[in-house]
Amino acid sequence: MRGTTKLALALSAGLMLPAAAMANEELLKMEKDPALWSQPAGNYANTRYSELSEINAGNVGSLKVAWTFSTGVLRGHEGGPLVIGDTMYIHAPFPNTVFALDLNDNGRIIWKYEPKQDPDTIPVMCCDTVNRGVAYGDGKIILHQADTTVVALDAKTGAVVWKAVNGDPKSGSTGTSSPFVVKDKVIIGISGGEFGVRGSVTAYSLADGKQVWRGYSMGPDADTLLDPAKTTHLGQPVGKDSGTATWEGDQWKIGGGTTWGWYSYDPALDLLYYGSGNPSTWNPAQRPGDNRWSMTVFARNPDTGMAKWVYQMTPHDEWDYDGINEMILADIPVKGADRKALVHFDRNGFGYTLDRVTGELLVAEKFDPAVNWATHVDMKTGRPQVVDQYSTHAQGEDVNTKGICPAALGSKDQQPATFSPRTGLFYVPTNHVCMDYEPFRVSYTAGQPYVGATLSMYPAPGGTHLGNFIAWDAGEGKIVWSNPEPFSVWSGALSTAGDVVFYGTLEGYLKAVDAKTGKELYKFKTPSGIIGNVNTYMHKGKQYVAVLSGVGGWAGIGMAAGLTEDTAGLGAVGAYKALSNYTQLGGVLTVFTLP
Amino acid sequence: MRGTTKLALALSAGLMLPAAAMANEELLKMEKDPALWSQPAGNYANTRYSELSEINAGNVGSLKVAWTFSTGVLRGHEGGPLVIGDTMYIHAPFPNTVFALDLNDNGRIIWKYEPKQDPDTIPVMCCDTVNRGVAYGDGKIILHQADTTVVALDAKTGAVVWKAVNGDPKSGSTGTSSPFVVKDKVIIGISGGEFGVRGSVTAYSLADGKQVWRGYSMGPDADTLLDPAKTTHLGQPVGKDSGTATWEGDQWKIGGGTTWGWYSYDPALDLLYYGSGNPSTWNPAQRPGDNRWSMTVFARNPDTGMAKWVYQMTPHDEWDYDGINEMILADIPVKGADRKALVHFDRNGFGYTLDRVTGELLVAEKFDPAVNWATHVDMKTGRPQVVDQYSTHAQGEDVNTKGICPAALGSKDQQPATFSPRTGLFYVPTNHVCMDYEPFRVSYTAGQPYVGATLSMYPAPGGTHLGNFIAWDAGEGKIVWSNPEPFSVWSGALSTAGDVVFYGTLEGYLKAVDAKTGKELYKFKTPSGIIGNVNTYMHKGKQYVAVLSGVGGWAGIGMAAGLTEDTAGLGAVGAYKALSNYTQLGGVLTVFTLP
Repeated sequence: MRGTTKLALALSAGLMLPAAAMANEELLKMEKDPALWSQPAGNYANTRYSELSEINAGNVGSLKVAWTFSTGVLRGHEGGPLVIGDTMYIHAPFPNTVFALDLNDNGRIIWKYEPKQDPDTIPVMCCDTVNRGVAYGDGKIILHQADTTVVALDAKTGAVVWKAVNGDPKSGSTGTSSPFVVKDKVIIGISGGEFGVRGSVTAYSLADGKQVWRGYSMGPDADTLLDPAKTTHLGQPVGKDSGTATWEGDQWKIGGGTTWGWYSYDPALDLLYYGSGNPSTWNPAQRPGDNRWSMTVFARNPDTGMAKWVYQMTPHDEWDYDGINEMILADIPVKGADRKALVHFDRNGFGYTLDRVTGELLVAEKFDPAVNWATHVDMKTGRPQVVDQYSTHAQGEDVNTKGICPAALGSKDQQPATFSPRTGLFYVPTNHVCMDYEPFRVSYTAGQPYVGATLSMYPAPGGTHLGNFIAWDAGEGKIVWSNPEPFSVWSGALSTAGDVVFYGTLEGYLKAVDAKTGKELYKFKTPSGIIGNVNTYMHKGKQYVAVLSGVGGWAGIGMAAGLTEDTAGLGAVGAYKALSNYTQLGGVLTVFTLP
Repeated sequence: MRGTTKLALALSAGLMLPAAAMANEELLKMEKDPALWSQPAGNYANTRYSELSEINAGNVGSLKVAWTFSTGVLRGHEGGPLVIGDTMYIHAPFPNTVFALDLNDNGRIIWKYEPKQDPDTIPVMCCDTVNRGVAYGDGKIILHQADTTVVALDAKTGAVVWKAVNGDPKSGSTGTSSPFVVKDKVIIGISGGEFGVRGSVTAYSLADGKQVWRGYSMGPDADTLLDPAKTTHLGQPVGKDSGTATWEGDQWKIGGGTTWGWYSYDPALDLLYYGSGNPSTWNPAQRPGDNRWSMTVFARNPDTGMAKWVYQMTPHDEWDYDGINEMILADIPVKGADRKALVHFDRNGFGYTLDRVTGELLVAEKFDPAVNWATHVDMKTGRPQVVDQYSTHAQGEDVNTKGICPAALGSKDQQPATFSPRTGLFYVPTNHVCMDYEPFRVSYTAGQPYVGATLSMYPAPGGTHLGNFIAWDAGEGKIVWSNPEPFSVWSGALSTAGDVVFYGTLEGYLKAVDAKTGKELYKFKTPSGIIGNVNTYMHKGKQYVAVLSGVGGWAGIGMAAGLTEDTAGLGAVGAYKALSNYTQLGGVLTVFTLP
């Protein structure tokens, strides 16, 4: 009963909203202007592609640093700058300082906003105190703080317009993802899958911060905003209470499926896309069943939150292969036919191409040959064919299952890929890391880690390198070229009409490669390791490329948090130990241009 | 009696040493190789001049950043890198991490040394947790830690060779100055004038860290290593116990005169030069008399510590005009005659030119026209003619004396100037700041601040700018050109055979100006405000310029320590408040070269 009432309320709230909303139109217009970088991903489609071509494959080798800016904060700097007019907006990890910088004066500070947050939030952040950036809409800069507070700041002055609270760090909820502005709403995800947080996506009014709807990853239909008859999974209705039916008892209430990745939106279809994370705990024996809808791609109506379709990539996860990586929307030929595609490089090591209208599964192929936990994805059922040897459930509790590829941080983590419509290729920062995984029984206490697994990580067999930067044909599901990197590529990539692809490395290099061949055309050692996303913009008729360096994140958690045990940082510390021979902490924006 | 014994011991220790020592010869050879930057000041003469000319006034405008490196430490980064062969050595403020960086691989870390120090040392550091750099000698890198520990590290491996302890932070002693290697010794100064520390200079054996001699700034002759008959002050013997004779009672025991500035050495004369700091307390009424030998230039024999001559610039200081700024040794014409000169830009606002053989006073002129506390220096007595209106002693305790120029941080603080033998000019980073000063009675407790004055600081009358970068004719005592800067110039300067002078600004700009005219030829915004010293070197036949940014120091103490009260930071916080509109904390090395 209570559930139904909530569903009805959510629906009516949606229906009361005006059909056309200003922010949406403004952002759609802005994303067509390549001088700006108005959204974290550059555009609603999450392509991270820019039409700028002043910097191109022919001249990128002479790139030089235009100016730099230290954020004054150590630890991992994910995300990247926004550029709106003559102003650049950047952010820092906890305490989540936001800066408006004057592009007319080498980044002089126009305003600075530094929230006061309880430092007790820090230990609740599983994988460094990262933040993936601010969003812009309707004259406001939206910040999603570590403590889950959502703040709208006046873009001109930095004055607080409104605040909303999305969760409670005391129960393990934190904020790391970038806000996503659609129509008259701000879409906010949540982190905390390692603390048994039940993931949800919440829409707040862009005007005043009031909550409009919330859709959980699991729970009764009223919570998940799934329609038993109309919401489909691979073309079939999901049925009643599909978000509880594959769980034992009340485990779904602490079931994970958090939503800390990237969001995309198709204005023609009016659908919002994102993925959900791992089911809780990491010990699969404690949660038999498919654990729907963890590890799932969601396509939701942004006004009401109602899901049109879902697709679960990793039913009953046994490896922490969160499904939260970005969904890139591209109209591409898939096996000979033009499709409205959604392309997603999952942590489980499969590159998925779906029909974004219907959720039909078109392609699912490994984008790292090292992937061994599943032989393939059954294209009818959509299920991966799991290999018993690498099944931590089949091997059992307190058994250390060895040699699983990829490691928990995935063949790719949240670092976003890019799509160039000029080459038709996707450029993907990847990890080439395997793991040993030993699940154990764990009991739930609110606000305490709820992991139940001990991990160690190391390079995939046959080499010592921990990453590759690859070009991917999503229509065929094939690697086109692959550049090995000593460490995982943990930065977001950028492709441009200059047929150059940019990415950063954990040692601190910004690299530019030829979009067609992958040939390295330029590299520059920034002050610290790069886990930020490369962006580009134009100012006074000149193209710039900008990136935050500042090593940290899950791969850099050893350095960021001062951990030294190999199994610390959920297993990442051991694998990335050599990183401290190359770089140190420190958050710095580096802005590049041609001489 | 006890004093005499100590003097005898000190003398005999000196006599037992071998006459010629390897480190000295090695360093003398190294300083002639312009590819290296083997000493913090570039050479024993402290000229900070390089014979390199690949980067010159004609092409410096096309300078670009070669690579960068974050130290992982916030707060003020003073000092600068050393370059020995293919290795660069840099350091950080507390915790005083030292890095050996591989110049063949964009600064990859060869080794890192991070001392464990008691964080309780931090509050004992008056003016940020700065460190002015490491020194090299005989295959060792010498670090002078904040807690006064002196550590010799194997330059190849970073392994600890020896350690010595120079003082006790619990009694207010700290280490901020760079070690200085002369012959077979390491010369170490001490900080803590704001805690009543009695300043001293100590020589340790470069081989094993054993103490060889210690010369105090005040006290009986056995402590000061002044010979009553042979040590002269302006040509006259200083007389017996000159280091206690101008003090009332035992005040000299907590008399200040610390030695935290730069050291220079003339191998032909075999004399070591440096200056001593303010007498303690800052309340002049509590210490009548000249307070010798605070505020004094010392010329000492490096083997024995015995002083050949002294010159007290500011007898009975009433303004905190520490005499610790660098002594630049240059053979220049002075009023028509060639002299072996020592040139010193004192915090008291006078540019002094002395005969460095005899200590004869040749020139003493104001290098900032704003200086008003004294009308002039009497050339016979060497005494400044103090203006009653700005005498905090004459005005009295608990009186707020207004409009004193310069402020306590001086017309120039420790940021070292440079001398170009090509132009014959000295290039001086200066402050253009005045103050109100209210002395009050204070009682001494070991390890507690012993200041006794409340200050506020502000720009000198007639403008809003807080600094100038000037060219100075030390033979005539005249400003040749002066470039105003919005903030004090708190970085060390560099001049080269390319007729370019480099310096950094508190907003973060590295600037290159024409040595003859001062015309700005290049500027680049580094990640943070620059209080480090610009150095240059050659690697694989290419010239590089390197500087540490990382705002802080006394001028940046508000940002570094998070202070907001105008009178905090001994008065500096108010004057430099606008700095946070331009830059944030963060230690980053930026290395420049031509395209």
